[in-house]
Amino acid sequence: MPTYSMAKAELLLLALVASLSVLPFSSLAVYQDFCIADLSAAATPGGYPCKPPKDVTADDFHYGGLATPGTALKPFKISLGSAVVTTFPGLNGLGISAARMVMVPGGVAPLHSHPGGTELIFVIEGSVVCGFISATLNRVYTKTLYAGDLMVLPQGQLHFQYSHGNTTAVTLSSFSSDNPGLQILDFALFANDLPTEVVNKVTNLDELQIVKLKALFGGRG
Amino acid sequence: MPTYSMAKAELLLLALVASLSVLPFSSLAVYQDFCIADLSAAATPGGYPCKPPKDVTADDFHYGGLATPGTALKPFKISLGSAVVTTFPGLNGLGISAARMVMVPGGVAPLHSHPGGTELIFVIEGSVVCGFISATLNRVYTKTLYAGDLMVLPQGQLHFQYSHGNTTAVTLSSFSSDNPGLQILDFALFANDLPTEVVNKVTNLDELQIVKLKALFGGRG
Amino acid sequence: MPTYSMAKAELLLLALVASLSVLPFSSLAVYQDFCIADLSAAATPGGYPCKPPKDVTADDFHYGGLATPGTALKPFKISLGSAVVTTFPGLNGLGISAARMVMVPGGVAPLHSHPGGTELIFVIEGSVVCGFISATLNRVYTKTLYAGDLMVLPQGQLHFQYSHGNTTAVTLSSFSSDNPGLQILDFALFANDLPTEVVNKVTNLDELQIVKLKALFGGRG
Amino acid sequence: MPTYSMAKAELLLLALVASLSVLPFSSLAVYQDFCIADLSAAATPGGYPCKPPKDVTADDFHYGGLATPGTALKPFKISLGSAVVTTFPGLNGLGISAARMVMVPGGVAPLHSHPGGTELIFVIEGSVVCGFISATLNRVYTKTLYAGDLMVLPQGQLHFQYSHGNTTAVTLSSFSSDNPGLQILDFALFANDLPTEVVNKVTNLDELQIVKLKALFGGRG
Amino acid sequence: MPTYSMAKAELLLLALVASLSVLPFSSLAVYQDFCIADLSAAATPGGYPCKPPKDVTADDFHYGGLATPGTALKPFKISLGSAVVTTFPGLNGLGISAARMVMVPGGVAPLHSHPGGTELIFVIEGSVVCGFISATLNRVYTKTLYAGDLMVLPQGQLHFQYSHGNTTAVTLSSFSSDNPGLQILDFALFANDLPTEVVNKVTNLDELQIVKLKALFGGRG
Amino acid sequence: MPTYSMAKAELLLLALVASLSVLPFSSLAVYQDFCIADLSAAATPGGYPCKPPKDVTADDFHYGGLATPGTALKPFKISLGSAVVTTFPGLNGLGISAARMVMVPGGVAPLHSHPGGTELIFVIEGSVVCGFISATLNRVYTKTLYAGDLMVLPQGQLHFQYSHGNTTAVTLSSFSSDNPGLQILDFALFANDLPTEVVNKVTNLDELQIVKLKALFGGRG
Repeated sequence: MPTYSMAKAELLLLALVASLSVLPFSSLAVYQDFCIADLSAAATPGGYPCKPPKDVTADDFHYGGLATPGTALKPFKISLGSAVVTTFPGLNGLGISAARMVMVPGGVAPLHSHPGGTELIFVIEGSVVCGFISATLNRVYTKTLYAGDLMVLPQGQLHFQYSHGNTTAVTLSSFSSDNPGLQILDFALFANDLPTEVVNKVTNLDELQIVKLKALFGGRG
Repeated sequence: MPTYSMAKAELLLLALVASLSVLPFSSLAVYQDFCIADLSAAATPGGYPCKPPKDVTADDFHYGGLATPGTALKPFKISLGSAVVTTFPGLNGLGISAARMVMVPGGVAPLHSHPGGTELIFVIEGSVVCGFISATLNRVYTKTLYAGDLMVLPQGQLHFQYSHGNTTAVTLSSFSSDNPGLQILDFALFANDLPTEVVNKVTNLDELQIVKLKALFGGRG
Repeated sequence: MPTYSMAKAELLLLALVASLSVLPFSSLAVYQDFCIADLSAAATPGGYPCKPPKDVTADDFHYGGLATPGTALKPFKISLGSAVVTTFPGLNGLGISAARMVMVPGGVAPLHSHPGGTELIFVIEGSVVCGFISATLNRVYTKTLYAGDLMVLPQGQLHFQYSHGNTTAVTLSSFSSDNPGLQILDFALFANDLPTEVVNKVTNLDELQIVKLKALFGGRG
Repeated sequence: MPTYSMAKAELLLLALVASLSVLPFSSLAVYQDFCIADLSAAATPGGYPCKPPKDVTADDFHYGGLATPGTALKPFKISLGSAVVTTFPGLNGLGISAARMVMVPGGVAPLHSHPGGTELIFVIEGSVVCGFISATLNRVYTKTLYAGDLMVLPQGQLHFQYSHGNTTAVTLSSFSSDNPGLQILDFALFANDLPTEVVNKVTNLDELQIVKLKALFGGRG
Repeated sequence: MPTYSMAKAELLLLALVASLSVLPFSSLAVYQDFCIADLSAAATPGGYPCKPPKDVTADDFHYGGLATPGTALKPFKISLGSAVVTTFPGLNGLGISAARMVMVPGGVAPLHSHPGGTELIFVIEGSVVCGFISATLNRVYTKTLYAGDLMVLPQGQLHFQYSHGNTTAVTLSSFSSDNPGLQILDFALFANDLPTEVVNKVTNLDELQIVKLKALFGGRG
Repeated sequence: MPTYSMAKAELLLLALVASLSVLPFSSLAVYQDFCIADLSAAATPGGYPCKPPKDVTADDFHYGGLATPGTALKPFKISLGSAVVTTFPGLNGLGISAARMVMVPGGVAPLHSHPGGTELIFVIEGSVVCGFISATLNRVYTKTLYAGDLMVLPQGQLHFQYSHGNTTAVTLSSFSSDNPGLQILDFALFANDLPTEVVNKVTNLDELQIVKLKALFGGRG
């Protein structure tokens, strides 16, 4: 028990002797049990600076944002909500985050990767097909997942999900980072200002194909 | 694209020239896209040795064990299933795992900690009260969680859940380790051979109390 | 030797040519040999911001606080001092810390864990009994330690020490973190505002037992 | 100097007394200065088991494979060689690797990512255009690089290089992992057995486009 | 695709519906694709705080400082340039850095170590002898390196390079840290204010030798 | 409590129902509470493979080797004992180790570094002068330490201790690694087969000085 803080030692002492201690914890140096992100401060490679411990309440460890359907992505027939450090500051530095997806029949989570973390997807209801393409081996691993199934998608490698069957699917994914990142292939290729000729050069896609999808996804150049 | 493997370079070349390459990948050295645990080999501090990549199939990335109710712990009115590296070898080295709990009204997940990882609990249905006791500050943070709510429980600190309301609750927890561990207080104190007098000495619990709970939990000594 | 800084290159050059260089190091960009904590700034998950290198002196690497007996915890018959980043800022980011305990005959270091680090305890004089309860296996590993003995207590798992023999024991513990944290079971259960009924529900301890120990440790609710 | 090994202590002693010690180091336990990969053993998530230290020679720290042009990828007009743990076992566990690319005028390193590490590319001769597409922000950062220039490409995010000017370019890339992995987009989409309809569904590429590129890259299905 | 940010979801939606979205990204919370160092802020053990993402341009990922010969160290007949986080802020938190050395015939990179990272040296032109002395085993591993050769020098262990042959050599080293540090033995012993008698005591070097080299390297005391 | 293992669930169930369970734990998959090194197996970069948990006893967590004076290094007037993973297998993967030094008046711990970890030195009795030379800043930080004092010596940087006063000093050092390594300068320069001319070239020491010290330390070449 050697790291007993003075605060605790004194608390104990007072408690035992007088049973009426009310110690001003907030004025004492304490160790770091957690580090709620102060999103108003600049991040560091290791995470955000911590909110002062004395201002932390139970609400800082709670996030309700996945209870609602999330943002509707009508063209893909999915709705998404995510709990990462920038939306749920209590995750700061703890190496975990989550996201919830609702997929109606015909829905697709288009090809994407998470550069900063592994995904573990759990099917709450319905059914989805889930696959990933391993990087160096270049193999495809695909499974049809039903309610209660888990599939793990290793860090930084391309994967996808799409609807299976005639009912709405709901999934909960967790990630091995408070900030896994997201790179959606269609957005990377067709929704920014990467010039058509460069996309052509580095992907071998035909220019007409690129122009067509840039129009769809709002790309410029 | 500098790390192009020879396998791929040759594949590409053949593909482009002849469009009929079938290369025996398994005979080539390949980089490590994943590392499925070989549970028959001795673990290391960094995880289990990898199954040969050529033997890996999509099934290695899938786990169906959380689809069933899991082990019933009747006295606590909960059922539990867990997906950690020793049950789901595909998680090896990936820093994530999961567990599912079904809690009927009146159920309790007794006080415990995970020495090796942070927990992120999500309520799939029903409602639970969830709390944790921060280590050094010794403060209690408790929330009543409803379907769709998340709560984060920082690594190694004591926490609990118990039933709220009259319906069955189902939760899915994820952890920031493929192997978070579990220390249940009642088991640590009352379900092994730690002598009653030692428990008394190091916890200040009365001997009668200890003897009573040792009988309940099967402790010896 | 490629990362030679300009400061050094110039120093060398001047030194070799003129043997009288006095370079204003503080105006040059230098790499990070150490990072003394600036405790007045907000911490991050990776540690505290660094004090400016030019203000660092040998005193920043030294801590004298373990030379004195530390805080007396009379009821437990132990005195404790700890050198962690919040008391010894020179440890910031270096993954190590220490604590010293003096235990008179009959003393006890009650059941506790360190969520953030492994402990390595060394007996300087006297003798103590030291044990830990492994988390998932739920086994008890206990040794009587004499002067010169070491015992390792893996991260986040419950352990204890108590007096052995008729002489005062002195121990020095080191930890694999600059901030291992400390969760004392009696404090977690009985020295905060966790309600008696909740303690009962999540531990199976009798309410009378809880009330008795809350009175002893100053708990409320 | 406290960790002095017995081997060294005895060596010193003998050396000082007799100046003729020849100690059988290989029969003594020694600490781990390095860990040359034994590629014949199964890897772990932390790297390969180590070759016995007594068998290690200077050759284990050397790799000559980048001195030659590497594998020619004629369609892309580049040649590549890579020094990663599976080709250069001395890198095992050391968090670094390298690759060399020769690009003739008109050459392209097609869009790809390294799931396991950041790339730092250095231009030895000639000139290339290098760009990356940041994941979540979805911005494109492109620079024309000349001899002596460096560009950093953060882990797991899509990037590319292509020829600039009329001379051959030579680059050396280093990576923050002994095993950064490589996912080439064209290969992931068109050089394995991912069915055309699935590629279409998860990328929005037209089926005709997909079929055309599968023919080029040797994909099936 | 579950972590879809709102920014992207909305972008997609607008793009698909109206094909004319211009979204103010900088006003939205975004995940961390990179963290360009703000060198004007205090560092932390995990790196520097990040520059605001909205201010980042392609220039932040580029460094041209190795294109020039670097600082001339005439007595050693080498010139050096380094790209570490304090000179190339784009490396912040990415675990990699680089340095370039030009060595004319007769040049030497004197004995030194990098406390914070492993070095991987590549010979661009010419030839050098490179060696390192393993710490605990105390063995010397030396190779003559020619253009195209790599040698790995494990973290924190003493190593050196010196000229081989009659032509100028140019090398590029990379390091497994954005901040590997540099300890040059001659500077540590003879270019600061460590008193001659202390150097003598802790190295067994003769006082005359020390005084002679202090004069050469500008040491005091 | 979601990761409840089946073993525990069944134990609990049996215990509660029948109070007489004797479960064959060793036949069940269990999580990894610790990993005692199996030194007969090949190490990996992350540590040694684990001894089977069923064979582990309390003795595996205990080390008595520092209770004796350790190896006498007569010329330096110190005795040393160390507890690192190769002598104390219980430390495997836990990021901590220790060493004890006894220094008689006039004793010296010669200039050295630990490539793999930070040192935290504690003076048990007597007094020593302790200093370190920071790498890149090249500054000397020296303190005279008395009983009870701590000094921290950051990873990989050169440091030393020498006797102060007329009494024997005893110190206990801990390290932030189970395997910090040790590079003693005199041994690196003068106790192996690094040729005299190379030592001269890379250190600027005079050949006569080198030959003299090679004779003292047993170097060849």
